[in-house]
Amino acid sequence: MTMSPFMQVAYSEAQASFNEGGLPVGSVLVHDGEIVSTGRNRQEQTGSNLLHAENDALERAGRRERRFFRACELYTTLSPCPMCSGSVVFYEIPRIIVGDCTTFAGEVEWIRSRGVTVDLEESQECIALLQRFIREKPDLWRKIVAD
Amino acid sequence: MTMSPFMQVAYSEAQASFNEGGLPVGSVLVHDGEIVSTGRNRQEQTGSNLLHAENDALERAGRRERRFFRACELYTTLSPCPMCSGSVVFYEIPRIIVGDCTTFAGEVEWIRSRGVTVDLEESQECIALLQRFIREKPDLWRKIVAD
Repeated sequence: MTMSPFMQVAYSEAQASFNEGGLPVGSVLVHDGEIVSTGRNRQEQTGSNLLHAENDALERAGRRERRFFRACELYTTLSPCPMCSGSVVFYEIPRIIVGDCTTFAGEVEWIRSRGVTVDLEESQECIALLQRFIREKPDLWRKIVAD
Repeated sequence: MTMSPFMQVAYSEAQASFNEGGLPVGSVLVHDGEIVSTGRNRQEQTGSNLLHAENDALERAGRRERRFFRACELYTTLSPCPMCSGSVVFYEIPRIIVGDCTTFAGEVEWIRSRGVTVDLEESQECIALLQRFIREKPDLWRKIVAD
């Protein structure tokens, strides 16, 4: 399946993180058809506990009124973990679009139960990039998800 | 009710945020009976979208193995919002202790459904400090929770 234009931007962010030695996940926050901010996982790069891709995009959006976030959409290459799902629910972002819900199922059910629309693109590019990371850096993947 | 010793530290963080003009919420992350990090709401102070008190404490803990967080407890003066609740669930923190679940109910039910123990202290000091903030700065409170 061809990626949608905003997912292509999120994928570029994921590639950038991969090239920096980080987890290849990228996100884009969109308001009224325009990009507000982009983000990528920066845990390995910066030592942050919070800067998953979705949180990074939200942080780079800067302070806004709550009604601004209520009119946004969030594109993300990987299904969001509980932390970033909580951020989506808190900021009442009404719709997220997920590139890869195969490698990691994330919190799709919980987010939907809170009224957020979740569209699954199942992009082969997003899936392949993360699978490559897991194959090439199994110890780092294990540290991130298990140990 | 008298505050427990770690809640007193969280309350001091909340007071510090109040004195800085921020939302008076504070948190303390504890491991094996020792303080790992303290945090306070820094949204107004820094323009961050992520730095609620609980997230601030988690960020200041620095990168740790996941098993480290699985042996932590998080004290917080106010019941956690969905964003910080998501962080607690993601890092598998097994127990949180809440100072004020009266002013804001937070996500206690959801966190418990994910296996986290939630103890409610219902500290009059924590409740009174946030009520004072709401009374003295109604516009800022409204901006934070509604607009």
